[in-house]
Amino acid sequence: MKRLSVWFCFLFLVCIQAKAQTLAEKMGYPKDAKLLIIHGDDVGVSHSQNKATFEALKKGLVTSTSMMVPSAWSAEVGVMAKEIPDADIGIHITLTNEWENFNWPPKAGRTKVPGLSDERGFMYSDCTPVTANASPEEVEIEIRAQIKAANQMGITPTHLDSHMGCIFYGKPEYMRSYLKIAQELKIPAMVNTEIMEGLIKPNMGVFEGINLENIPVINQIIMANPEDYEAGMEQFYTKALKNLEPGVHIILVHLAFDDEEMNAVTAGHDTYHAPWRQADFDFFTSEKAKELIEKNNIQLITWKEIGKTL
Amino acid sequence: MKRLSVWFCFLFLVCIQAKAQTLAEKMGYPKDAKLLIIHGDDVGVSHSQNKATFEALKKGLVTSTSMMVPSAWSAEVGVMAKEIPDADIGIHITLTNEWENFNWPPKAGRTKVPGLSDERGFMYSDCTPVTANASPEEVEIEIRAQIKAANQMGITPTHLDSHMGCIFYGKPEYMRSYLKIAQELKIPAMVNTEIMEGLIKPNMGVFEGINLENIPVINQIIMANPEDYEAGMEQFYTKALKNLEPGVHIILVHLAFDDEEMNAVTAGHDTYHAPWRQADFDFFTSEKAKELIEKNNIQLITWKEIGKTL
Repeated sequence: MKRLSVWFCFLFLVCIQAKAQTLAEKMGYPKDAKLLIIHGDDVGVSHSQNKATFEALKKGLVTSTSMMVPSAWSAEVGVMAKEIPDADIGIHITLTNEWENFNWPPKAGRTKVPGLSDERGFMYSDCTPVTANASPEEVEIEIRAQIKAANQMGITPTHLDSHMGCIFYGKPEYMRSYLKIAQELKIPAMVNTEIMEGLIKPNMGVFEGINLENIPVINQIIMANPEDYEAGMEQFYTKALKNLEPGVHIILVHLAFDDEEMNAVTAGHDTYHAPWRQADFDFFTSEKAKELIEKNNIQLITWKEIGKTL
Repeated sequence: MKRLSVWFCFLFLVCIQAKAQTLAEKMGYPKDAKLLIIHGDDVGVSHSQNKATFEALKKGLVTSTSMMVPSAWSAEVGVMAKEIPDADIGIHITLTNEWENFNWPPKAGRTKVPGLSDERGFMYSDCTPVTANASPEEVEIEIRAQIKAANQMGITPTHLDSHMGCIFYGKPEYMRSYLKIAQELKIPAMVNTEIMEGLIKPNMGVFEGINLENIPVINQIIMANPEDYEAGMEQFYTKALKNLEPGVHIILVHLAFDDEEMNAVTAGHDTYHAPWRQADFDFFTSEKAKELIEKNNIQLITWKEIGKTL
């Protein structure tokens, strides 16, 4: 009996210990480490985006990216990735097509997932009609089609995340497929504390069978909004880096050049447009950003490192 | 009886007369007129192609174009077309996707017409696998899907033609759908004497029910080949314009800029690539081309004018 209770105590302590471990600790960093992924969203959307993103990845501050598979330029991601050994590339699950003059259909095919395409055969321009029209089954088919296509392009994804957040803002079942597929692939799906508390926990019935304990939860997802862009990207990112607290964080940026192609892709938009993307590129390839990261003891990490905790 | 035979004679003469009329005469030109469409293929394939094609159309020597509907930039054609009243825009029926890093699926959707897409969901890179895999029904579905999509983009096509000639080099049934749909729409489908003699006449069984008498047959389709490009486009087009014989002809050109985007689209190719397209643009927006057309008494026409003979 004594022997048993000693074992019980030991196991109990291990459990408490494991439960108390932060994601940083699980990754082998001290609890007070400031860990940051600087993440280039939207690679694959255009040639400009591909070139700028891979240039930034090579320069070293941007540590990760995720690709928009249904767009016309996604195969170029596979070609460019060959130049960076072990590039950290995830799937930017894409359920929308927000540009007027540059379009894509769902990767699974418009007739296979009719709820994911408008009458022209293109994805909808924002998340609202996606949620109204796309069944959970269609979204799961589309996620799997995007991952399969990325594989065929030579990409083994390091993580999943969600273009325009449609997975998070849609039906909770979309989120279930997102987590389930990530667990099948043994890779992380981007989730922060807010999503965990606001979406997953209130819908526990939907997530039955998903191992929620094992999900790496990011503390903060940081992204500039239109007011930040207006006030100046350098100011926004400087403040974000200076104020970064201990934990695991991600800054989402959009890297492209303010060139003819990107201006045509984003025509008619005054946010997330070509100059916005150039400003992101300029800051996260600058000496200033490098110095801020060093001075503030920020450790740059990748999704692949987070994935090792799974 | 006398009255009847007079009528018979009259009708017979009308028939002879009609049969003897050349396409030029049907259009109201003298028999010895040199009529020419300078046609910008591939509009819609890229932003560069769209910009160059519409710039050339505005300058006036290029009189017609046809759009590649399945490509990502086709909606921009509808937007740019608003700037040119009565622009002569057809459908460049597209069954292939010849570029490695810039791709498109069939417009009808990859699962609707599986014979028109490779395992990645993109169209095949040349006509041979199209002919091997695509049923006549699939090709007809795809042609109709492309026309419907163009309509939704604001384009009422003035004519049909065929990207990379896959309609002409494929199964004769593809050609049947092409002619049948053009007749339904009361617009011309590009056919020259060679196609009429070499493809249509030897397969008359396939074309049962199609009104072959009424098809406007172009005399010559003129297009530079790789040797012509090597020797210099100015030399090739100068010779073509100087030697143009009476009849109705078309010069097929590909208009884009030798810019970053177009070089990325055509990466790995040394024909029909960005510099080739820039050379086409340069010649057909030049004073030299204008003078050659004037000096050689060439009358520039559109597909819309040919369509009026139907």
